[in-house]
Amino acid sequence: MKKKEILVLKDLLGSNKMIASEIREELTEKGILTINFLSSPGAGKTSLLEQLAEQFQSQYKMAVIEGDIETERDAERIRAKGIPAWQITTGGACHLEARMVGKLFSEIPSNLDFLFIENIGNLVCPASYDLGEHIRCVLLSSPEGDDKPKKYPKAFTTSDCLVITKSDLVPILPFDIHKAQNEAMEVNPQIKTFVTSAVQGTGIKELTGFFIESLQKLRKQNA
Amino acid sequence: MKKKEILVLKDLLGSNKMIASEIREELTEKGILTINFLSSPGAGKTSLLEQLAEQFQSQYKMAVIEGDIETERDAERIRAKGIPAWQITTGGACHLEARMVGKLFSEIPSNLDFLFIENIGNLVCPASYDLGEHIRCVLLSSPEGDDKPKKYPKAFTTSDCLVITKSDLVPILPFDIHKAQNEAMEVNPQIKTFVTSAVQGTGIKELTGFFIESLQKLRKQNA
Repeated sequence: MKKKEILVLKDLLGSNKMIASEIREELTEKGILTINFLSSPGAGKTSLLEQLAEQFQSQYKMAVIEGDIETERDAERIRAKGIPAWQITTGGACHLEARMVGKLFSEIPSNLDFLFIENIGNLVCPASYDLGEHIRCVLLSSPEGDDKPKKYPKAFTTSDCLVITKSDLVPILPFDIHKAQNEAMEVNPQIKTFVTSAVQGTGIKELTGFFIESLQKLRKQNA
Repeated sequence: MKKKEILVLKDLLGSNKMIASEIREELTEKGILTINFLSSPGAGKTSLLEQLAEQFQSQYKMAVIEGDIETERDAERIRAKGIPAWQITTGGACHLEARMVGKLFSEIPSNLDFLFIENIGNLVCPASYDLGEHIRCVLLSSPEGDDKPKKYPKAFTTSDCLVITKSDLVPILPFDIHKAQNEAMEVNPQIKTFVTSAVQGTGIKELTGFFIESLQKLRKQNA
């Protein structure tokens, strides 16, 4: 990268960080736990959100910010579950930035429990952009292979949890759950792993349990 | 995007295009057909290259440039097949650029038939960077879903062929090959589709046939 490019990038990341901090501060005050989902295209972010919507349904209020390059397909899937969803269509850009989330802020109801952000399907660029979330989750689907944490380390080093998705396919794939988990822990020893299948509904309760516990901590901190 | 960022990006893409044209010219003169593989992480680029290596083995000389953010794992897999492979490790950058390919130029033997470039696993950013290839192929693995061409259009509009991979999993997945193909053709009516499975070895002959035909055209043009 040339010097000029590096300077522009530093500038951009610096101002993104500032906006993200303001967003997080406001969400913390409101007691809305915010979770940023990162993954490759087709790793199952929207399917996981559909599952979470069903789990949270009766007891918690959630909403979703959907990031996509083109189409409103993901937001439509979420709305079909009765969950408010805002679509950010970047028209080419490869990641969401904090200012895009900030623009939606006035529309977000303040009585929410959880705000999920589904980032652009990209295991590389979104890892560099703090969106003001409290928790970052990287999803890794079993068909992608268990060698991804070391090949795409930033998404794993910056995440609080690793959600292995499509675990129903593991028996027929060369995917070793322990290898994936160990690789992730080698690059980030603090990362928590959840093994899920949206098809079989496994692992969803454990994940919602973690989010509920984190919400309670956030609100205790505020009290 | 701010004005300053847009200007830097334009500058970068412009100089990339110039370098790419020079590379393509030189590869054309040498009669080396060059193919750029684009896809999400884990879509099966390296497995497809392993299959191509076996098909070309006795009759054609191929080599591979491997792009990865971290690790030499993919290059090692290719070398294990007896194929020369050069690793470009970008250390964070989300795509290959023509200048990175240009730096390797002196090492590439001039008696090659095919030079494959395996781009960074990213369905977004690599689509904007011409590397001097003659043919661009986008790979879409069946577990990613048949809705990707319209969600990530640039990778499909800029590609000459769509290689659907992991077709052995289609019977157990909600993936409709015709839907994926139709969506790709809606964004790019000229795109050729190949349906492959590295596990079952299907579709590889058709794909090598297309590459051999393209190589013959390139050399005829030179004659």
